[in-house]
Amino acid sequence: MAVGPTGSPEWLREAAEAGGAEIVPEHLASALLWTAPDDPDGLRDVLERAGERLEWVQLPWAGIEPYVEALDQDRIWSCGKGVYAEPVAEHALTLMLAAMRCLDRYARSSTWLQYGHLGVNLKGAKVTILGGGGITEVLLRLLGPFECDVTVVRNHPVAMDRCARVVGSTDREIDSAIRGADALVVALALTPRTTGLVDARRLALLHDRSVVVNVARGSHVVTDDLVDALESGRIMGAGLDVTDPEPLPPGHSLWRLPNCIITPHVGNTPEMARPLLAERITDNVRRWISGTDLIGTVDVAAGY
Amino acid sequence: MAVGPTGSPEWLREAAEAGGAEIVPEHLASALLWTAPDDPDGLRDVLERAGERLEWVQLPWAGIEPYVEALDQDRIWSCGKGVYAEPVAEHALTLMLAAMRCLDRYARSSTWLQYGHLGVNLKGAKVTILGGGGITEVLLRLLGPFECDVTVVRNHPVAMDRCARVVGSTDREIDSAIRGADALVVALALTPRTTGLVDARRLALLHDRSVVVNVARGSHVVTDDLVDALESGRIMGAGLDVTDPEPLPPGHSLWRLPNCIITPHVGNTPEMARPLLAERITDNVRRWISGTDLIGTVDVAAGY
Repeated sequence: MAVGPTGSPEWLREAAEAGGAEIVPEHLASALLWTAPDDPDGLRDVLERAGERLEWVQLPWAGIEPYVEALDQDRIWSCGKGVYAEPVAEHALTLMLAAMRCLDRYARSSTWLQYGHLGVNLKGAKVTILGGGGITEVLLRLLGPFECDVTVVRNHPVAMDRCARVVGSTDREIDSAIRGADALVVALALTPRTTGLVDARRLALLHDRSVVVNVARGSHVVTDDLVDALESGRIMGAGLDVTDPEPLPPGHSLWRLPNCIITPHVGNTPEMARPLLAERITDNVRRWISGTDLIGTVDVAAGY
Repeated sequence: MAVGPTGSPEWLREAAEAGGAEIVPEHLASALLWTAPDDPDGLRDVLERAGERLEWVQLPWAGIEPYVEALDQDRIWSCGKGVYAEPVAEHALTLMLAAMRCLDRYARSSTWLQYGHLGVNLKGAKVTILGGGGITEVLLRLLGPFECDVTVVRNHPVAMDRCARVVGSTDREIDSAIRGADALVVALALTPRTTGLVDARRLALLHDRSVVVNVARGSHVVTDDLVDALESGRIMGAGLDVTDPEPLPPGHSLWRLPNCIITPHVGNTPEMARPLLAERITDNVRRWISGTDLIGTVDVAAGY
């Protein structure tokens, strides 16, 4: 296995070795661990030099948008998808509870507010989750004791544990799933089809005590439309770990909304990620050596 | 059943009637629904006038400190304890997650902070809960999917579902339960013995990524000691729904701590409470009429 680009972190190389990989130069490798979060040109150079010999590319990160153009059908691609599911799902629940209990306003106050009426229970709430991947699987587990009425929207609407229903992703199905939800959670991969999925029209299907949580990618949500919905009180609050644009520039109107909590893409911090990522790479190298299916393979046609 | 004092909310009276109570003047009643949150003198007057005929007093609220001196062994006392368990336990989890994920600092920021290192997972954390009542029972259920290592401290250390261990409340047992905890949750009744339970010495048993959550009464925690621990970074954060003093006056040092989230005693808002409270009263009236044990009876000797 080759590891690139130059200067890749030692712990990633060690994770590969722990799985049984022998680290060799690119032209001798049958597999490549490419550790740069955003260097598709560098990757293309290596792929060209390596040629057909290179059968498998492991990208460590979950989101591989920068590499979509570099993907090819000639090899197996795998990425870190699912690795971050545990911490990100936990973050999603944190933002959901924080928004439903209006921690946004309380955290920013320096007096004992007497709102009284603020806040709703998650228990028994109607929750709609866009996306049916690893984050959603974990989130469904965490939501279990709250006895929510959960709808999951996903491309392949196969049954999932611990949710009332799974529906497909036609416009009509999405609309129907969002209508009247107390909490709308965005937890899907970003593709051209899902960009701008949550727009003014869909936000209007929610109600004035609904909250929106985004732990996927900022561009799933039309930011200006979300600002309008929050500002006018048409929805109660939002919790965003991702934004569009990202990083959110100082002075952006999202910052001044009292009913929006923004965390700077920390659903999964480097400290949380490192051991999980290392484990995935070690595991996949072991699988590659023993000829078992890899975890987190990329659907090249779908782009995630 | 009599309902007092004058001006009691109509919905409380209706809840009693829904259980089958006939509302009568005090001197004809065998039971009393006393709805004032803090009027022990008014209650004493009624009890004196009513005499022995009055066998049962229902106080609607969960915390009955104002009435401790008015309790007597001549009758059955019941209160709202346990009623608020669901929303308060949910609030406790909200504050715990918010503190562990440092929403305190993020919520107050109006720029995209690049802390990176902030935040820890609840998953698998060592959690210590002081108190083994209704809130704790619900919280244990909510914590289930996080696979935490949970210790519950309570006066009567009988086994509880979904926690690793239940220990008694000697000083030594409390110290040992708190030592090294990632999250310390205060969820017990306030008695002279538990006032100031969490002081500088006990906070020193925690570590620099620990969080403290209080959803019980402010006086369980020595406020100045908590301020010191938070300010010096000896613990990572705190989430408080109750404070001492309460309401927390403007300018109090707790307000200026970046690593403390304060909510103004809203674990259970009036909107959340009303249906639960009404249900409890209706249920207890039914039980009284049918001769079944009441729910939420007060241990008069223990004072809660």
